[in-house]
Amino acid sequence: MDEERTEAWWSRRAWALLSAVRERAPLVQCTTNLVSMDIAANVLTAAGASPAMLHCLREIPDFTPRCDVVYINVGTLSEDWLPSMRAAASAGRPWVLDPVAAAASGFRMEACLELLALRPAVVRGNASEILALAASSDSSSSFNGVDSSHDSGEALQAAKALARSSGSVIAVSGAVDFITDGQQVISASNGVAMMQKITACALAIFGLAGEIGMESAKGPASLRTHLIDALYGLDEQTVTSGVKIALVP
Amino acid sequence: MDEERTEAWWSRRAWALLSAVRERAPLVQCTTNLVSMDIAANVLTAAGASPAMLHCLREIPDFTPRCDVVYINVGTLSEDWLPSMRAAASAGRPWVLDPVAAAASGFRMEACLELLALRPAVVRGNASEILALAASSDSSSSFNGVDSSHDSGEALQAAKALARSSGSVIAVSGAVDFITDGQQVISASNGVAMMQKITACALAIFGLAGEIGMESAKGPASLRTHLIDALYGLDEQTVTSGVKIALVP
Amino acid sequence: MDEERTEAWWSRRAWALLSAVRERAPLVQCTTNLVSMDIAANVLTAAGASPAMLHCLREIPDFTPRCDVVYINVGTLSEDWLPSMRAAASAGRPWVLDPVAAAASGFRMEACLELLALRPAVVRGNASEILALAASSDSSSSFNGVDSSHDSGEALQAAKALARSSGSVIAVSGAVDFITDGQQVISASNGVAMMQKITACALAIFGLAGEIGMESAKGPASLRTHLIDALYGLDEQTVTSGVKIALVP
Repeated sequence: MDEERTEAWWSRRAWALLSAVRERAPLVQCTTNLVSMDIAANVLTAAGASPAMLHCLREIPDFTPRCDVVYINVGTLSEDWLPSMRAAASAGRPWVLDPVAAAASGFRMEACLELLALRPAVVRGNASEILALAASSDSSSSFNGVDSSHDSGEALQAAKALARSSGSVIAVSGAVDFITDGQQVISASNGVAMMQKITACALAIFGLAGEIGMESAKGPASLRTHLIDALYGLDEQTVTSGVKIALVP
Repeated sequence: MDEERTEAWWSRRAWALLSAVRERAPLVQCTTNLVSMDIAANVLTAAGASPAMLHCLREIPDFTPRCDVVYINVGTLSEDWLPSMRAAASAGRPWVLDPVAAAASGFRMEACLELLALRPAVVRGNASEILALAASSDSSSSFNGVDSSHDSGEALQAAKALARSSGSVIAVSGAVDFITDGQQVISASNGVAMMQKITACALAIFGLAGEIGMESAKGPASLRTHLIDALYGLDEQTVTSGVKIALVP
Repeated sequence: MDEERTEAWWSRRAWALLSAVRERAPLVQCTTNLVSMDIAANVLTAAGASPAMLHCLREIPDFTPRCDVVYINVGTLSEDWLPSMRAAASAGRPWVLDPVAAAASGFRMEACLELLALRPAVVRGNASEILALAASSDSSSSFNGVDSSHDSGEALQAAKALARSSGSVIAVSGAVDFITDGQQVISASNGVAMMQKITACALAIFGLAGEIGMESAKGPASLRTHLIDALYGLDEQTVTSGVKIALVP
């Protein structure tokens, strides 16, 4: 905590974390949406992790405790998957909540709040999702917007409030990503438009892969291909010189 | 109606519609098959729309009324998704029915006929699917084939009959696409083999993106990448000079 | 049987089989996992087959008997899909079992053993999956490991035992693929790392497409694109000179 956390320190830290993922190949259970299963599995594999897409309630007691981390994404939520999400979130492993389109329906918002109460280590959302969650989780809140035109400063205040009330780290993705534990705020400025992001240092590394991919992309589909290739090929020099993480004063 | 609808008129119209999609970013609910969710979301995004893949019955009352259009595709139909399709089709928004492999089973054909009775704005199918639907929806019909070797002229007559009986616009995709309201027939001649298409002017624009993508493709997978890139990058000059839409006399 | 099965014989045989697939376009029902539906459909299409992703129990009696072959993959198994897998496996068509992560849970292993008792023509798995299946299907077995660090020689003995007890051909994918009916063992040495494989001569052809794709790939995502393009474009000269199949003495 006393060490000075310069941008160079964060860059070395980002490389150390990516190296650790590549070395340990953590087993990541993903109970995620039907749309992005393919790219989620390929991005995690390219980053060095060992993804396992799994949503069957009967398998959770055997499988989830063996995982290093659990990722839960409500993008195509349905009633029959929610019990599996609850069980996976309660299995004692660190887990990440991705509250995609949290405000799409009352059903989805209730599910997100119920999952939030199960203490994710990290919640990753865009400004609209974090604002909606913050508003719904705090009846006295002044945050009540859900559209994406909201000011990122407002999302940042909502993220800090949500971090304090939930006990989770909140990562707000956007042109600049913000990550906060309710006290400190870190920014990650890597990335190009159209990219979905995951979490923490991962936001900067994924963003950096997008920047490199964009150099040879001719549109969103080739960006996707080049981003995954770039993520797979990142080396120390590229990461430590390219990552842009900073403490927000 | 009195304006002369030359090929140049249709080309300007196609550009105007694509521009409107890019400007308004319509919210498109897709209750679609498990195979093509990823490419459907990416094609819609590349075209400028805002896709939302959603199939949970509990979410439809809150979400569907806020959508600009609904797309329902029965490609991997199951009993638990059919009630959501019915509810989404009944939510009062214009909607498109994609009766993939309508004749695959009695269950699927019954589901397609039931959905057809809920008045889609547009039905998009290949020749076999339209022939099968027309035959099943009209007990006096002479259309009874379901394999893809059928003559496109026969599909065209079936499409016109189906348009009249259903009240929907019928789009028959193929080497040449035909779109009919039961009276007039429009053809769209863009595209290359192996492409799935969506609807109306979209057929020509998607086909044009395929033609451009094919210039640098080396096979079906790179065609997919280049098609989406090309769709994203289409400009007025390319659309108005490249689209091939004509009134069929 | 008396013909000498040299490497050249196998290469000609691989080309003959690929040509037959392209000519006949066999209808392949895939009841497969949610993650790889897209790539499975695209790989089968690129190889010349006609894939149909289908998992609805109500459709199996009408549809499965019309298929040439059925592919069942338990990668994202759930309780509601298992009855469809049972029904499809029992429909009288030759079928392939892909026991992805068979040892992930007791529920999944029981499902795999139950499916194995329905006599797949081919079981395709990696070393860990085959070892786990062999151990679980034979209570007197000495095969009890499930992690992927197992020796491929041990997997080969397990594969032979499993082939004899199940009556299925067992294909073990890896750096070198082994295919056995319990008596003879064939090896296929094509391929590059990171590729999933399917079955028999297909293993060599898919591997060869991967080798060609790797020539222009810059990472796993572009490998995927180039592999499918290469599979689509394979010609006789490339197949007969490139396939590496051999009888293991």
